[in-house]
Amino acid sequence: MHVGSTAAPSAEDRQRWRLADLAARPERLDVLRASLVALGVDAYFGVRPENARYLTGFVLADGEEKVAGHSGRFFVDAAETVLLADSRYRLQAQSQAPRSRIEDTPGGLAAAWPELLGSLRPLSNDVSRGVAGIAVEAGFLDHASWLALAAAAPDVELVAIEGLIETQRVTKEPSELERIAAACAIADEALDATLPQIREGVTERELAMALEWRIRTGGAEALAFDVACLAGARAALPHGSPGDDAVRAGQVLLFDFGAQVEGYRSDMTRTLFVGQPDAHDRAIYELVAAAQAAAIDLLGEALRSQRAITNREVDAAARAVIDAAGHGHHFGHGTGHGIGLATHELPSLGRAAPEAPLPSPTVFSVEPGVYLDGQTGVRIEDLVSFDAGAGTFELLTRFPRSLTVVGEG
Amino acid sequence: MHVGSTAAPSAEDRQRWRLADLAARPERLDVLRASLVALGVDAYFGVRPENARYLTGFVLADGEEKVAGHSGRFFVDAAETVLLADSRYRLQAQSQAPRSRIEDTPGGLAAAWPELLGSLRPLSNDVSRGVAGIAVEAGFLDHASWLALAAAAPDVELVAIEGLIETQRVTKEPSELERIAAACAIADEALDATLPQIREGVTERELAMALEWRIRTGGAEALAFDVACLAGARAALPHGSPGDDAVRAGQVLLFDFGAQVEGYRSDMTRTLFVGQPDAHDRAIYELVAAAQAAAIDLLGEALRSQRAITNREVDAAARAVIDAAGHGHHFGHGTGHGIGLATHELPSLGRAAPEAPLPSPTVFSVEPGVYLDGQTGVRIEDLVSFDAGAGTFELLTRFPRSLTVVGEG
Repeated sequence: MHVGSTAAPSAEDRQRWRLADLAARPERLDVLRASLVALGVDAYFGVRPENARYLTGFVLADGEEKVAGHSGRFFVDAAETVLLADSRYRLQAQSQAPRSRIEDTPGGLAAAWPELLGSLRPLSNDVSRGVAGIAVEAGFLDHASWLALAAAAPDVELVAIEGLIETQRVTKEPSELERIAAACAIADEALDATLPQIREGVTERELAMALEWRIRTGGAEALAFDVACLAGARAALPHGSPGDDAVRAGQVLLFDFGAQVEGYRSDMTRTLFVGQPDAHDRAIYELVAAAQAAAIDLLGEALRSQRAITNREVDAAARAVIDAAGHGHHFGHGTGHGIGLATHELPSLGRAAPEAPLPSPTVFSVEPGVYLDGQTGVRIEDLVSFDAGAGTFELLTRFPRSLTVVGEG
Repeated sequence: MHVGSTAAPSAEDRQRWRLADLAARPERLDVLRASLVALGVDAYFGVRPENARYLTGFVLADGEEKVAGHSGRFFVDAAETVLLADSRYRLQAQSQAPRSRIEDTPGGLAAAWPELLGSLRPLSNDVSRGVAGIAVEAGFLDHASWLALAAAAPDVELVAIEGLIETQRVTKEPSELERIAAACAIADEALDATLPQIREGVTERELAMALEWRIRTGGAEALAFDVACLAGARAALPHGSPGDDAVRAGQVLLFDFGAQVEGYRSDMTRTLFVGQPDAHDRAIYELVAAAQAAAIDLLGEALRSQRAITNREVDAAARAVIDAAGHGHHFGHGTGHGIGLATHELPSLGRAAPEAPLPSPTVFSVEPGVYLDGQTGVRIEDLVSFDAGAGTFELLTRFPRSLTVVGEG
């Protein structure tokens, strides 16, 4: 795809992943159907683009759902998936979702709702009564649309559900793991190739764009999210956008970024030093690195001793190191999050997350940070592929974690 | 901002626009309050990022609302605006929305809802009773959140509203018009600068990225939307994404793209020819150009004769030309749409839109197209600034509309 990139997946890789998705969808659908039967509903109406991609193959780019109308929304019944696509998306839907029945709703979704429901084969045993209740992704359907659908077929109960498909997506199939690893490799290589451009005087925005360009010409179809590049005290903003200030010697330079490969995402953070850091910044860096190592070591220890480990234990391992150094209140976010078709998915590794054993196999970030308002910020973030069944875990992010000085000489 | 770009706004322009927004907000809020009083509600809860920016100044990048939680959501009461921002966004909120009260909801929005409502000053005359009813952007708040808010303060009525602020945003202030014009100029210049790269063998994706780069280094803070670059028969897909096929001689090459300047967007489409077109493609191009000219001429005629003109008349003027040539069923979308903080806003210029006089001053696109499945597609899109009060209109898109051949010799 791009001459000189060693991380770019081959056309054969991409074809293999698409076929793996196609082969996996019947089982994914069966798992969902079992959940629906347990809930006592007859069908499912999905709104979230990632869920549509997971179950049908239809792709909307990030944000495209805002202009796509109902295109990409979908039904699951006892027999098939029904994908909505207006005339703009018809050819794309036929190509990407060959096993779905494609339907248009030119008069609006509410007008078509009764007929669409009537065309579904209910999951209940009593097929003759039609669809009596349908699970709806209430966290993604706007309230105005909900009201319109409820009014369009008042005899059909809309059952507000959240997280059914998201829970399935937590455990990853081999081809999903491969794509996340491929996205990590592209991101690693892009940062490595950007290092020579870092020097005094260049702006955050210029570096963010240079890194973005390398990701998007290096084998990724898109960024996972907008590149963060924050220098000096701005690195203490966990969600800052790159600015037009020039980078100065002695500053930290925090990059938070990711790539997207056939829908699957990576996410990594590196905090570099532009010239030699002072003793204080160096100590903060080593503290964060030690916190990250503690969380990762705990994963290895749990696997070796074959004991289950919870999301909160991983968070606690990193947090204990930072707490002990007196910086607990400078680490305001969780230690990690799952990743896949969305950049942030389950499991959530934080103090506030419901305590639960780590699912498996899965991928999540380990990303402790220390943010000193008005001074400096350090975060180090890697993705970990974790498989308790196989007794293994793997760091998918390969860029060095050790303190890295750039822009010298 | 970028050496060599003549279209990039100056730092003084940007400062002036920000101050104009600051000065305009009290009146924008008063207009909204009058609507709320007419509806009999005491306050407003806003969810849509463009509306937050319009009334408070707080900015979320496109798609950032998916990770921002409740940050950026806002209240309007009789006295002030209240902006929600968690710790990640606190500094940004203080800087961008200096006149808003900033509140965090660390335990979730529903938990904070009763206290937030209690802190508002109701618009009703009876201040002692507190907020009894609040307008909520039902088209942007998900149903699950709606349920949670309704349960958190069962005595306060949630009133589902849509389009209140969007209707205000249709008529543009001078500084809004300036920013849209600046975004158009950046887009014009970016396409012009990309022309030399168009030749046989280059891919849609390479050209889309080259154009994107020129926009984003030419003075725009972002794209208005992902660049479409579609060659040959793919130009017949109104929503296709750039692919990896090489451009060939004799093909049309359709670019649909826009820039963003201090939040305001542009949108333009040009259909170029890679080498000399054949007689059929040339005829289709001239037909679409004639349809566009008919719609634009109608605007001038209506202004000269000082008569009101409706959105449907503009659509009908373009459509009549295409219908008369027997291609009516190859023009499946409306003739235009408003634009501003969102790429697609009111007014809607199409057959299906409710008939209404064109608002004024406003900006909208004029973009007829003819799409021949499997053969070719042509669309020409310009933005028009329309001011019936002043009796003037202006084409903001300056790139030539005449048939343009590229990639020769």
